[in-house]
Amino acid sequence: MDITSDIHSQHISRQFNQELDELKTHLMAMGGLVEKQVQDAVGALLDRDSELGQRVVDNDRAVNDMQIKIDEECTQVLARRQPTASDLRLVLAVIRAASDLERIGDEASKIARNAIDLIESDSGNRGFVEVRMISEHVRRMVRDALTSFARLDTELALKLVHEDDEVDNEYGSAMRSLMTFMMEDARSISPVLSVMWILRALERIGDHANNLAEYVVYLVKGLDIRHTDPEDLDKDMFERNP
Amino acid sequence: MDITSDIHSQHISRQFNQELDELKTHLMAMGGLVEKQVQDAVGALLDRDSELGQRVVDNDRAVNDMQIKIDEECTQVLARRQPTASDLRLVLAVIRAASDLERIGDEASKIARNAIDLIESDSGNRGFVEVRMISEHVRRMVRDALTSFARLDTELALKLVHEDDEVDNEYGSAMRSLMTFMMEDARSISPVLSVMWILRALERIGDHANNLAEYVVYLVKGLDIRHTDPEDLDKDMFERNP
Repeated sequence: MDITSDIHSQHISRQFNQELDELKTHLMAMGGLVEKQVQDAVGALLDRDSELGQRVVDNDRAVNDMQIKIDEECTQVLARRQPTASDLRLVLAVIRAASDLERIGDEASKIARNAIDLIESDSGNRGFVEVRMISEHVRRMVRDALTSFARLDTELALKLVHEDDEVDNEYGSAMRSLMTFMMEDARSISPVLSVMWILRALERIGDHANNLAEYVVYLVKGLDIRHTDPEDLDKDMFERNP
Repeated sequence: MDITSDIHSQHISRQFNQELDELKTHLMAMGGLVEKQVQDAVGALLDRDSELGQRVVDNDRAVNDMQIKIDEECTQVLARRQPTASDLRLVLAVIRAASDLERIGDEASKIARNAIDLIESDSGNRGFVEVRMISEHVRRMVRDALTSFARLDTELALKLVHEDDEVDNEYGSAMRSLMTFMMEDARSISPVLSVMWILRALERIGDHANNLAEYVVYLVKGLDIRHTDPEDLDKDMFERNP
């Protein structure tokens, strides 16, 4: 009896680990799609490709569907497996991460819609340099956030939390120079506003990448660093690490 | 022995229900604080009270602390009680709702910071009528969302999901008239942009109220209506209701 029950419990535990791995795999697949949506949305603007922009808008549905599916899987794992400790933290981190990925998808869709407006109004390329620069930075953040999640790499995750401040600075300075364009030429107001919305969306994507990185720390260290000042963070990590 | 164990399990279940009630109570307390933050942020602008604005910015920390506390309580309930079915849905809905309330708090803080800028630059009150109108609408949505959560009132929740479209329309028309101000007078660009950020924040608050309403439906019906077109919703509810 003991051996049978042991084999049985090993079997359950193998299945459970498989389910947890699947959650991570599905999250990474969603992350890959969302990365591509951001890349295509910005590409649509820079290459003046409104068809590509429309594809991004249309694909947002697929992103939403993936979030619902991941949420359902997480809920089932919670109900059937009743995980505790680090397994529980993993499932909760996946739920949170999927929600941030879905919001990154929303922002990509907003970028694409503004890109289509800009292409159709054929109004020059003021601010495109800034869009390109910030988008590259932010896309790298999303990629690194997903990598840190896949590898549970807290060092990479903590680097990201600091990096978000840099994006905020780049964003602030881009917004100021765009405002100057507006003041110099009233006809530029409408297109420059569209570029501002795009920059705003990129800045928000940086925030979500930052959130993803925070979940990795929560997952590995069991430490909730949301709302902690990045400057206090290393100190806090050091003092509270096991 | 049977009676003792029965009393024991009744005791556990009473304690558990108490814990679930506490989660709801704490979420409502957080909701109350967040409602007040939105009210004060808009009040700071309309009454030109930058001290009040600064208080909103400072209070954001209290909102963040409440989210962390609620999240910890939810995680503990999941780990210790291992809830299933509707109890599990409640805990997950509380985690999600606390996250949306925290983001409403962020938006209130952004409104307050822009209000302080506007008060200090002493630049007239263009767009204030629109801010007042949309803020009243959005605050009513937040209040109704919290009420529908407290009473598990899906009828009120579904009303809200439709209302979000109205706010989006009001927002779009306000943004268009603000753009006209900018084009007519280049000196108005900077203050009008601040008003635009405030309107954007209000529109986002409406989205979060909408999310809260969706969690109520999820909670009561076990039906995930996120990303469902409001027009399909009543039909969908009808077809899938138990």
